[in-house]
Amino acid sequence: MAKALPKRSENYSEWYNEIVKRADLAENSAVRGCMVIKPYGFAIWEKMQRALDDMFKATGHQNAYFPLFVPKSFLEKEEEHAEGFAKECAVVTHYRLKSNPDGKGLVVDPNAKLEEELIIRPTSETVIWNTYRTWIQSWRDLPLLINQWCNVVRWEMRTRLFLRTAEFLWQEGHTAHATEQEAVEETERMLGVYADFAENWMAMPVLQGLKTPSERFAGAVETYCIEALMQDGKALQSGTSHFLGQNFARVFDVKFVNKENQQEFAWATSWGVSTRLMGALIMAHSDDNGLVLPPKLAPIQVVIIPIHKTDEDLAAISEKIEPIVQELKEAGVSVKYDDDDKQRSGWKFAEYELRGVPVRLGIGMRDLEIGTVEVARRDTLTKESRPLEGVALYVKHLLVEIQTNIFEKALKFREENTFRVDTWDEFKQQIENGGFIMAHWDGTAETEAKIKDETKATIRCILLNSVEESGKCIYSRAESGKRVVFARAY
Amino acid sequence: MAKALPKRSENYSEWYNEIVKRADLAENSAVRGCMVIKPYGFAIWEKMQRALDDMFKATGHQNAYFPLFVPKSFLEKEEEHAEGFAKECAVVTHYRLKSNPDGKGLVVDPNAKLEEELIIRPTSETVIWNTYRTWIQSWRDLPLLINQWCNVVRWEMRTRLFLRTAEFLWQEGHTAHATEQEAVEETERMLGVYADFAENWMAMPVLQGLKTPSERFAGAVETYCIEALMQDGKALQSGTSHFLGQNFARVFDVKFVNKENQQEFAWATSWGVSTRLMGALIMAHSDDNGLVLPPKLAPIQVVIIPIHKTDEDLAAISEKIEPIVQELKEAGVSVKYDDDDKQRSGWKFAEYELRGVPVRLGIGMRDLEIGTVEVARRDTLTKESRPLEGVALYVKHLLVEIQTNIFEKALKFREENTFRVDTWDEFKQQIENGGFIMAHWDGTAETEAKIKDETKATIRCILLNSVEESGKCIYSRAESGKRVVFARAY
Repeated sequence: MAKALPKRSENYSEWYNEIVKRADLAENSAVRGCMVIKPYGFAIWEKMQRALDDMFKATGHQNAYFPLFVPKSFLEKEEEHAEGFAKECAVVTHYRLKSNPDGKGLVVDPNAKLEEELIIRPTSETVIWNTYRTWIQSWRDLPLLINQWCNVVRWEMRTRLFLRTAEFLWQEGHTAHATEQEAVEETERMLGVYADFAENWMAMPVLQGLKTPSERFAGAVETYCIEALMQDGKALQSGTSHFLGQNFARVFDVKFVNKENQQEFAWATSWGVSTRLMGALIMAHSDDNGLVLPPKLAPIQVVIIPIHKTDEDLAAISEKIEPIVQELKEAGVSVKYDDDDKQRSGWKFAEYELRGVPVRLGIGMRDLEIGTVEVARRDTLTKESRPLEGVALYVKHLLVEIQTNIFEKALKFREENTFRVDTWDEFKQQIENGGFIMAHWDGTAETEAKIKDETKATIRCILLNSVEESGKCIYSRAESGKRVVFARAY
Repeated sequence: MAKALPKRSENYSEWYNEIVKRADLAENSAVRGCMVIKPYGFAIWEKMQRALDDMFKATGHQNAYFPLFVPKSFLEKEEEHAEGFAKECAVVTHYRLKSNPDGKGLVVDPNAKLEEELIIRPTSETVIWNTYRTWIQSWRDLPLLINQWCNVVRWEMRTRLFLRTAEFLWQEGHTAHATEQEAVEETERMLGVYADFAENWMAMPVLQGLKTPSERFAGAVETYCIEALMQDGKALQSGTSHFLGQNFARVFDVKFVNKENQQEFAWATSWGVSTRLMGALIMAHSDDNGLVLPPKLAPIQVVIIPIHKTDEDLAAISEKIEPIVQELKEAGVSVKYDDDDKQRSGWKFAEYELRGVPVRLGIGMRDLEIGTVEVARRDTLTKESRPLEGVALYVKHLLVEIQTNIFEKALKFREENTFRVDTWDEFKQQIENGGFIMAHWDGTAETEAKIKDETKATIRCILLNSVEESGKCIYSRAESGKRVVFARAY
């Protein structure tokens, strides 16, 4: 029997690392900060990609592909953008190696130095807006609604599998519009798509809000975000959607002739989610027994395990199970009948629990006699005996119920861990226990920075649906017109 | 009216470039040798990806993701492999930029020099086999059947959109096996998958064969390939599948305990196809009017264009067309009803022809009166009037017929351009006219090199199904046991 997982309550960080490792989701590679996404982890990511991609296409977007390399001069153009990314980027300086003249192996060929250094894209605004200059001439070319799925590199010093890695996979949408209003609407529409995906696919409730100026994307006029609460009480930014104004159009000279026949700079948005969502998914739902996956994103939704002693027993079980497997497949359920003889059934039970398979059916010889099957739910860890007859339909409904239950459990957790706080003492005490803290803030970057310095708490967002309420800033006691959301965050 | 395309017969190369550009498939980026894949081109690539991915999964493979970066020391390990890729690789030497102390902009921060240079992966054998060392312990862990979809970089000096670019997209399968025989079987199985895809999806007939030793992948024991013939008589290598023996297992120390309880090195294969297939697809079928797409890979399979003067006319046509659109969609046909009023119908006819949409339905007021519709085929450029009633079913069958016809046309072209040649004079003459040349070769690398020097022709492959036939080498007149396939190639 494998050693038990660390408990969340004892060592949350170690619990996370062990789930990622033991459930075969990802591992560190030989290259600092870069991960290998293993087949089971990648299968979950593929499910996320497919669902998001369908949503992007349903909202009128098309996929395209832009180069991995950003010329240094492109990065320099937008000043804030440059400042935000220059300090953590991988720089290509040469295009050839040669045999080492002084010994073994290969060395960089000094004669193959690039005239201009190339940056591995940390994000693609610059490359894409340089391209849009020739694509956009008239209002008839707008809106331009493009997305790309790709890898990006940000040279993070402290990395963690999925949550913060030097290379990660993501999608980045880059749209161009004829008016400010249309661009803002697009920014908000895509935030809505992300919230929809987080809640209805990942079963993870999210707050939708605006970032404060100091937390904005480098080069954005306004950054919208979705924020989720993890089980250790820390927040995780799960997706961002940026209104970029005319900043990138201006520096890359992307003008169009509007309906009034005048030249104007195009209005921009960009939005992205990444493999970080894998980290959010793991931390939002999993328990001390391992991963808990919402059925909609589970590579295997139902596993069926025979419990038998002899080959004859197995044959008898398989014969009964085959039509149920067929029925589930026809209903669009991803099902695995694990009749592999190399492992015992007890080992399999633990393994699929660790991997978060939502429903497990166990069937032994006694079941066969009386026409029953054991149905186990991963989310509640409950088991019940059900008639074999009609079990496929039952399971189909159960998957829907599990999806809902996982969401509601996470929502209840968030509600129980969201606090209204009015004084600085109360704030300092509460922040140690985690959760979202709704508190008044005076609106200044100075106060925001001081609160962060003293407590490590940041303003996660200003809720889109926040209500007017007069109060006093928890830190400076200055007047405030509404509460904002504080938390410690990943 | 836009200027006509260059004719294939007059300037094949320019014809290709113009199709890529005007059909909105791809364009050159600001970064030397890197392309932007535009939405219409990317939609075709997505269809290719989906079909291939399904075939990989149906043959038991799983997707995963490995890092973009290859440490220099990894590349050095396998000598032939290093030699094959060191001369054309992008090298990351630093991980930070900083403000230019002497003026404006950003410069590479000399304090952020990497201890070991990182290469942008030109292919991932080294990174993946370094990872497999911990994944493979016992024969129970084998076979390991993994694929990844990603970008790779090879610093090509002379680039061409899709055919040869510094960065390209591809998939690379990397499998590990317990026996030599299983690995060879896998290598051949995946070549078969590629041939199946090329012929049944791309409608492009391919030869299946082995590369000569001098044309092998760097580090392979045996390289299998599929070779297609383009309309200008040049060959295009469209996919390769490599039997790597134990070369990578040995240098990365990947051992497993076999069933006899002995340690053994694992046996490897790797196989890949890339966005180069886009170039093959374009050149195999397109004509002087533009792109010709096989229905199975066409983002839009059927376009319906109303021909009308007034809004009332359009409304009447739309009412009749709506149920046909629905019927086609329900039959799984990708259909676009283009009722956009910004362009005339004549412009649309030319545009969809250029973009290779397989079937075009045109419907005007006269058609409405008598219950007909004009059905135009892109492959034959023929038109016919059909009853509106039942047209959806007719079109569905027509798409199948077009897919077959495009393949048969390409096959006929290849057959007419495959020549058996027995003398050197004949060879030199024939090679100027293009095509596959079946000729005897003495089996030496020297002769192969001299033929290449003198005629630019290379041995494309030794056919898997080649028959024994004694003859004399066209160049050296030495004895030869079978013919091999020569051609000039992309």
